[in-house]
Amino acid sequence: MNKRKNILIVGLGLIGGSYAKGLTKNGYHVFGLDISDKTIEYALKNQIIEKGFTSSKPEIYENIDMIIIGLYPDKIVDYIQDNQQYFKENTFISDVAGIKCSYIYEIKKILRKDLIYIPHHPMAGLQLSGIENSDEKIFEGMNFIITPDEFDTKENIDTLYDLANILKFKNVNVLDVKTHDEMITYLSQLTHVIAISLMTEKDSTHFIKYTGDSFRDLTRIATINENMWSKLFLENRQLLIPEIDLFINQIVNIKQTLIDNDEEKLKQIMILSTQRRKKFDE
Amino acid sequence: MNKRKNILIVGLGLIGGSYAKGLTKNGYHVFGLDISDKTIEYALKNQIIEKGFTSSKPEIYENIDMIIIGLYPDKIVDYIQDNQQYFKENTFISDVAGIKCSYIYEIKKILRKDLIYIPHHPMAGLQLSGIENSDEKIFEGMNFIITPDEFDTKENIDTLYDLANILKFKNVNVLDVKTHDEMITYLSQLTHVIAISLMTEKDSTHFIKYTGDSFRDLTRIATINENMWSKLFLENRQLLIPEIDLFINQIVNIKQTLIDNDEEKLKQIMILSTQRRKKFDE
Repeated sequence: MNKRKNILIVGLGLIGGSYAKGLTKNGYHVFGLDISDKTIEYALKNQIIEKGFTSSKPEIYENIDMIIIGLYPDKIVDYIQDNQQYFKENTFISDVAGIKCSYIYEIKKILRKDLIYIPHHPMAGLQLSGIENSDEKIFEGMNFIITPDEFDTKENIDTLYDLANILKFKNVNVLDVKTHDEMITYLSQLTHVIAISLMTEKDSTHFIKYTGDSFRDLTRIATINENMWSKLFLENRQLLIPEIDLFINQIVNIKQTLIDNDEEKLKQIMILSTQRRKKFDE
Repeated sequence: MNKRKNILIVGLGLIGGSYAKGLTKNGYHVFGLDISDKTIEYALKNQIIEKGFTSSKPEIYENIDMIIIGLYPDKIVDYIQDNQQYFKENTFISDVAGIKCSYIYEIKKILRKDLIYIPHHPMAGLQLSGIENSDEKIFEGMNFIITPDEFDTKENIDTLYDLANILKFKNVNVLDVKTHDEMITYLSQLTHVIAISLMTEKDSTHFIKYTGDSFRDLTRIATINENMWSKLFLENRQLLIPEIDLFINQIVNIKQTLIDNDEEKLKQIMILSTQRRKKFDE
């Protein structure tokens, strides 16, 4: 990233704000674009960014080498469509969206040929939102996934390896967008659907004093930012619905062993469960 | 428990063994009954018990004041049926089974009138089993639930309060067996069904390096002792099946919001989820 010193962060939420903090502390010139006056004021006052803007205009982009988009996935295509005309030749663009398939094909279709766009996914976050809660330390030791396509060059992919290192991510991996989205749908979105379902299927708050670790672990993520997650779920519903069906299918299988009083089959499922889960602790 | 110094533990598994250790360290005379030679040998060699037996016989019970049964629920009725003829008058009997409704009514029906039987549930454990893994420290700070009926006296219930204090449990509560079993079905059994389903719905072990806290938290209990839990599930299937249905019903509701692209309804479910979950952290 040596050649890309002037970085614009679009959308200064929890993640965008944390990127801005981390990059500013590492000597980069960080600029911010966010529709909220308050957010920009906060970012300037706390020296998170050098300059801030509440609306996009051509002048912003004159010296920008790299753009990191921290918007909700459904806003990314519009942002590129409306603004890429102002970008310098060879500008490096990336985004931090948690799912990729819902917008990346459209981006690739409309993108100016002299621009570079490689998305990535910082697997980090908090159950809080907003720049006030931003903190570059949330990235330390976390996973960072780069999702290029077969036309992206090693040099450009390396720019995102650099970004991950600067922000102190630990494990950096490259995945195609489809595998990435399948992984996220299963590991993150389905787990949130499950936690929310368990928390809302009935009012269980009178059991609070009896809860042990199992219930608390399974529902920790049931405290959820409804604005962000409803968008993430809906953007990804074509993948999420079949993933929910797969899960329901298996829980129905287990229910059937109870109906049939089939101890042997139930044990076999439990043995498989133990075998698979143990691999995650190796 | 001052009057009840001679205690027989029936079934020296993880919990029975941990009770034996804790009671021996507190000056009680602890005897063990277990069908396994090896278990009794281990318990004697490690001074966990004073005397051990691999089969039940009249002489065992001559001086026993209290019997704590650590057997699987489906063995408890048989044990009482076959052996209560040998028990001293006024012997205090309890058991540690995780669910109560499946056997307690039968026990109350057959129990000799001069015996006392009040079940309880130590909400503690490990993902390991057997006396080799027993440790009285697993009880420190945990929940202990006493499940008497309306005929039990305060004095007898207090015996179990004493037991909980000796073993260093923190929260001791009294619940009727039905409420207890509903609570366990929801908080413990359903959570295990969910964790197992998530772990076995497909082979996801190629995603290991991408897993974050959410997935690990939701599947921690998917490492499961199939012998114990299959019995617990099946004994309790009349409660567990409707509880699974309630959960499936809600996950299907969430799926429907995705099919309908109903952001508002999805958000409302998430808001309710957050509200309820926050109460568990208060």
